[in-house]
Amino acid sequence: MADAGNEAEGLTLLGLHVSPFALRVRMALSLKGLSYEYIEQDLFHKGELLLSSNPVHKKVPVLIHHGKPICESLAVVEYVDEVWPGAAATILPADPHGRATARFWAAYIDGKLFPAWTGIMKAATEEARAEKLRETHAAVLNLEKAFAEISSSSSNDGAAFFGGDSVGYLDLALGCSLPWFGALRAMLGVEIIDAAQAPLLVAWAERFGETPVAKEVLPQPDEAVAYAKKIQAYWASAKN
Amino acid sequence: MADAGNEAEGLTLLGLHVSPFALRVRMALSLKGLSYEYIEQDLFHKGELLLSSNPVHKKVPVLIHHGKPICESLAVVEYVDEVWPGAAATILPADPHGRATARFWAAYIDGKLFPAWTGIMKAATEEARAEKLRETHAAVLNLEKAFAEISSSSSNDGAAFFGGDSVGYLDLALGCSLPWFGALRAMLGVEIIDAAQAPLLVAWAERFGETPVAKEVLPQPDEAVAYAKKIQAYWASAKN
Repeated sequence: MADAGNEAEGLTLLGLHVSPFALRVRMALSLKGLSYEYIEQDLFHKGELLLSSNPVHKKVPVLIHHGKPICESLAVVEYVDEVWPGAAATILPADPHGRATARFWAAYIDGKLFPAWTGIMKAATEEARAEKLRETHAAVLNLEKAFAEISSSSSNDGAAFFGGDSVGYLDLALGCSLPWFGALRAMLGVEIIDAAQAPLLVAWAERFGETPVAKEVLPQPDEAVAYAKKIQAYWASAKN
Repeated sequence: MADAGNEAEGLTLLGLHVSPFALRVRMALSLKGLSYEYIEQDLFHKGELLLSSNPVHKKVPVLIHHGKPICESLAVVEYVDEVWPGAAATILPADPHGRATARFWAAYIDGKLFPAWTGIMKAATEEARAEKLRETHAAVLNLEKAFAEISSSSSNDGAAFFGGDSVGYLDLALGCSLPWFGALRAMLGVEIIDAAQAPLLVAWAERFGETPVAKEVLPQPDEAVAYAKKIQAYWASAKN
């Protein structure tokens, strides 16, 4: 699917199979029914195309559209939604207040939740790990409240997704990390979205995982575990 | 101007006179010719309205529109542009690629430049300060290149602003910090936008400072200096 008919749209995506930020963009492209050339990147040996198309951050994802690179996953998702507004799905809410709320929480997911949960993996001591887990749970609790508010303020009371009856911007922004939440459970026995603390998000994650776009794009947690081990081995060898 | 006729639009802004993020929103509202009730916040003693309308971050700016709070300055600026699209000025570029580029660099200004230049003030040692100054200059150099690219790719070759012939999203995103760049010069003798390194941005900053919106909204650097001293005194008393 990813490599058929990409000439029509002129789309190339530089990604990494376990990168939440790249998965976010792949889900957006999939929601829109767009085909694209996908080029997996080796972040330990960055290629010329990645370096030249994202010289500032040298990171995935980069979406190249008719030769023009677009970087920063949230900006790429908005771009995809704006260029193909009439396609199968609408990603951003239609009304300005809903859009502002979605942008606020997406910034929160990237600014607070992401550094907290990745900090759990990077922590050098048990104490540091416990602190990052506390930060993660505080962020998840805020997102639980946000989900309660957003889904009850929707036209359908108690909507299934942040986006309402169908998957939207915040579903992609948070859902892209679910494989890693599974990997953390497998590796460290920690629960990122805890049923006692965030029952609505636990149910949301189950529903999200069953959507066609999640099934098509998201890797299994064991792929994230394998990649985490690869990173750890790289760090260990770098220290020697 | 800020307190006349606000009933018509139902707009209230919680701000701080020297906050770059609040200044960004005030400039957006001014560009659109909107009047609003402005309520200065005391961040050392946060009021109920701030805590209840931005419970997650408890920060300015918060724009309250017909009772609904909108937080995160970039999201607020986009909101203002979307709700009043036909007003005096357009803030975001009209084409999706221009919008994606503007969002990319706005994220860069907040994610890289802001922590670097505020780090100069917070640094505890001369060495740490020199490191933060290097980080700041590296970020400014990237923004110099961005300005060269964006202004030369505009329909008008060599446009005056990031937004083209008139002030736009990135002009607000970067321009809101100019009073602080002046304060850093006055307090520490450091030049954030250096003529040898970033001649285009030096010229841009001069042009931007002469625009009606900058003259109306931006404080003088000495107001930022006074606020910086207030923060330092607070920190010093907190340590005792």
